[in-house]
Amino acid sequence: MAERLVELARQLQDVCLARRLTVATAESCTGGLVAHAITEVSGASGYLVGGVVAYSDAVKRDVLGVPAAMLLAHGAVSAQVAVAMAEGVRARMGTSLAVAVTGVAGPLGGTDAKPVGLVYVAVASNGIPEVRRHQWPGDRSANKELSAAVALELLLAHALAVTA
Amino acid sequence: MAERLVELARQLQDVCLARRLTVATAESCTGGLVAHAITEVSGASGYLVGGVVAYSDAVKRDVLGVPAAMLLAHGAVSAQVAVAMAEGVRARMGTSLAVAVTGVAGPLGGTDAKPVGLVYVAVASNGIPEVRRHQWPGDRSANKELSAAVALELLLAHALAVTA
Repeated sequence: MAERLVELARQLQDVCLARRLTVATAESCTGGLVAHAITEVSGASGYLVGGVVAYSDAVKRDVLGVPAAMLLAHGAVSAQVAVAMAEGVRARMGTSLAVAVTGVAGPLGGTDAKPVGLVYVAVASNGIPEVRRHQWPGDRSANKELSAAVALELLLAHALAVTA
Repeated sequence: MAERLVELARQLQDVCLARRLTVATAESCTGGLVAHAITEVSGASGYLVGGVVAYSDAVKRDVLGVPAAMLLAHGAVSAQVAVAMAEGVRARMGTSLAVAVTGVAGPLGGTDAKPVGLVYVAVASNGIPEVRRHQWPGDRSANKELSAAVALELLLAHALAVTA
C-alpha cells in the first residue's frame, strides 16, 4: 500500500469524523483500491459505510442504478457514468459523500477514443457533483494508484467544502 | 500490493477463465483488498463481475441481504454472517463463485468473545458453502493481507473443485 494513499485516507478520516460526514465508494478500474486505502486507517468504520466494486456493466446498472441507455450512449468510461456511479452509490448507501472511478487501467481494453490510462473520477454530495478526467501514462498498477489518489483528494476537498 | 496476493490472483484468473467461472466478492474487514488484488492482473474483467465492501451492518443487510435477525443473534463477525454475505453477493451478481470476509482487523473493536484478529472467510458456489475461522496475530494491515490471501486460496480451491 502506497504511503501517500494511506496519508490521504488519514486526512480524509480526520475531516469526516470531525464534520460527522459519511462516505461510500463505487469503483470500476481501481477495483477496490480506494476502499482498501480508506480501511487501512484504524477508525475507518466511523465514516466509511461501504462501497461497490462495479467491474461489469451489469453491476453498474443493477447495483448502482446507472441507466442502461447512458452506458450505451456514452460507454462505461465517461464523465456521465462516473457521476451516475457516484450518485448511485451515495443514494444506495445514504452517505454524505460518495466517490466513483471508471477508466481503462490497461494494458488491454484501450481504443482510439478511450485509450489506456483514461480515467474519470467523480464525487457526489448534497451539492453539485464534480468530475475530473485524467490521462495517466503508467502501467495498470500505477494507473490504479494514481486514480485512487485523485479519488481520495477529491473526497477530501468536498469533505472540507460540504455544508451540513 | 503483496506479491503473494497477486500471484494467487493470477492463478485464480487462469483457472476461472479456463473453466468459464465468474466471481464476486463481499468484504468487510479486508475493505476491498481482495478485489484490488484480483484487479491487479490484466484480464480480470473476464471473470470478476464485481464486489461489495460491506463495512456497515446496514450494507450487509440492505445490499447483501444478510438477515437483520442473524446479525443480531450472531454478530457481524460470525461464520453465519460470512456465509450469508457470500451467498448474498453471489445471488446479487449472478456469479459461479463468491467469497466473503468478515472480522476484526484491529487495533480497536476487539472483545473477549471476538478478539482483534478473528476473521471468518466463506465461499459460496453451486455446492455446499465453506467457511474458515482464523485468529491472526498481526496488526491491522497484516490481518487484512492474511485474510485476503485465505479468500483467494479458498476461491481457487473451489474454482478447481466446482462442477459445471
